[in-house]
Amino acid sequence: MALREQYRVTVFVGGVGGARLAYGLAQVLPPERLTIVVNVGDDFWHLGLKICPDSDTVMYTLSGRVDRAQGWGVEGESTHMLEALRTLDPDGGQTWFKLGDKDLATHLWRTHALSEGARLTEITDVLRQRLGMAHRLLPVTDDSVPTRVETVERGWLSFQEYFVRYRWQPTVRCLLYDGAERARVSPEVAAAIDESDALVFAPSNPWLSVAPMLAVGDLRARLMARAVPRVAMTPILGGAAVKGPAAKLMGELGYPVGAEAVAGFYGELLTGFVDDTRNPPFAAGGLDVLRADTLMSDDAARVRVARELLAWLENGGGA
Amino acid sequence: MALREQYRVTVFVGGVGGARLAYGLAQVLPPERLTIVVNVGDDFWHLGLKICPDSDTVMYTLSGRVDRAQGWGVEGESTHMLEALRTLDPDGGQTWFKLGDKDLATHLWRTHALSEGARLTEITDVLRQRLGMAHRLLPVTDDSVPTRVETVERGWLSFQEYFVRYRWQPTVRCLLYDGAERARVSPEVAAAIDESDALVFAPSNPWLSVAPMLAVGDLRARLMARAVPRVAMTPILGGAAVKGPAAKLMGELGYPVGAEAVAGFYGELLTGFVDDTRNPPFAAGGLDVLRADTLMSDDAARVRVARELLAWLENGGGA
Repeated sequence: MALREQYRVTVFVGGVGGARLAYGLAQVLPPERLTIVVNVGDDFWHLGLKICPDSDTVMYTLSGRVDRAQGWGVEGESTHMLEALRTLDPDGGQTWFKLGDKDLATHLWRTHALSEGARLTEITDVLRQRLGMAHRLLPVTDDSVPTRVETVERGWLSFQEYFVRYRWQPTVRCLLYDGAERARVSPEVAAAIDESDALVFAPSNPWLSVAPMLAVGDLRARLMARAVPRVAMTPILGGAAVKGPAAKLMGELGYPVGAEAVAGFYGELLTGFVDDTRNPPFAAGGLDVLRADTLMSDDAARVRVARELLAWLENGGGA
Repeated sequence: MALREQYRVTVFVGGVGGARLAYGLAQVLPPERLTIVVNVGDDFWHLGLKICPDSDTVMYTLSGRVDRAQGWGVEGESTHMLEALRTLDPDGGQTWFKLGDKDLATHLWRTHALSEGARLTEITDVLRQRLGMAHRLLPVTDDSVPTRVETVERGWLSFQEYFVRYRWQPTVRCLLYDGAERARVSPEVAAAIDESDALVFAPSNPWLSVAPMLAVGDLRARLMARAVPRVAMTPILGGAAVKGPAAKLMGELGYPVGAEAVAGFYGELLTGFVDDTRNPPFAAGGLDVLRADTLMSDDAARVRVARELLAWLENGGGA
């Protein structure tokens, strides 16, 4: 019980899927036992605003402000600015990214704070607290690591052009995590990793959400140095992604679409893997595998999945 | 008649009062015969946005988008961003300036265009056209000339802090048009002045709206060099300002509150003056004075005042 009381988890997340696991974990673990590290590869500048889509999705989800139907953005959002902008920008060069009015406050506040010299980590910490999110949320780095996507049809695109403007329809040839080698893991993330009893990768897109984090500086080596369970959850359930381009992308990058290829993506980084009962079992090498119903379609399911994951870990699973 | 057909006017305006005269003139003069030059002393940076209050008021008024009750801002405006920002900024450091959601599109578009290297003059020209304003609107300069206000109670304030945050309640000791000497009249404004048959100063606040224009570079000399009617309208009607701090400010700066002191402010720059019938007549030296009902309380009155002014000018008045 003494061990159980102090058990600390760091979870690495992308956008919607990661936010759902983080939500479940946050219902079970008090703030001092859970740190959420978020991808910044999706972050971009738009209309002079610094926008951090994954960070915002996590903050809105964990503060109860999220638009539950779509899984991102703010509940009860309006788009009056965007409608006015269409008049000023008839060619649509600036209106393809849906900026809600309430959401704008987050981007304006963040951009202004950055311009005053604050680090993204500090800014995110104030934002999440003021939005009413109790648990710590850490960008994996304070540096800029924009994901760039080479597509067959449209050549190189920024991540948000690929993902939002062209709705992940172009065929991906190659991914680049620009600046990742020069980027440094933030001191806060480094400390969270060193103080954790388990390191968890949410069922986020391995190539679009997790890889941009793992590419940052010496993050992979820092993770490998920890002799604690390092486990990932499959984003592929029954041959398909719950949401987004994970399955489509795996095919385009030449991987068989399935949990085994996801485990292979992480490689020796993992000591354990959470697979979905919908997937066919695979020979997992040295991995300890938890098979569970991982579909997090509502809050109750998110909490159930989080409890099952934590019970497994705290009882020696995933090691 | 040939003269009348080609008669060109440049009008210098500040915010609400100036926009009302500009609206009236724009109903009478076609776009090729009217240029509106606008004060930039009120312009400021807020939350990373370049905001040009006088320019926006003129654009919204002349495009029919203005909130007619308050004389500025956009009709049917919402403030969802601002309400969300209050959550992020509980101390109110960023929420004292009322940024409407539709209005935000203007500021975001302008700020982004500035960051891409466009001149304020070019940006304003695209904005006014896309908003549906037919007549040319020119910032008096592309340079920054922020008005600063020294007050008895709060020391030095930026103009918008004085005007909006503290609702022009502090007692003004001194005004500074920062950078005005180094600022240059834009080539477009210089050309408009040189091509005009009359130069008109709207009934805007002399010290807060007109003086920041007259202080720019060699504007005063350029105006003095034109042997055409140079006329101003009184902002004081019956001992009071129609709107805003003009009368209060005159008292604080040590002037008697009245049209005579306004004419004195302009000095030898004027060849004519439009006084209100509510004011007591004064000995106007060499000035040709038109006495008229100048209260522009609705669109019909704005058009009537504009017609009366133009008829006077085109018949040799104000010279």
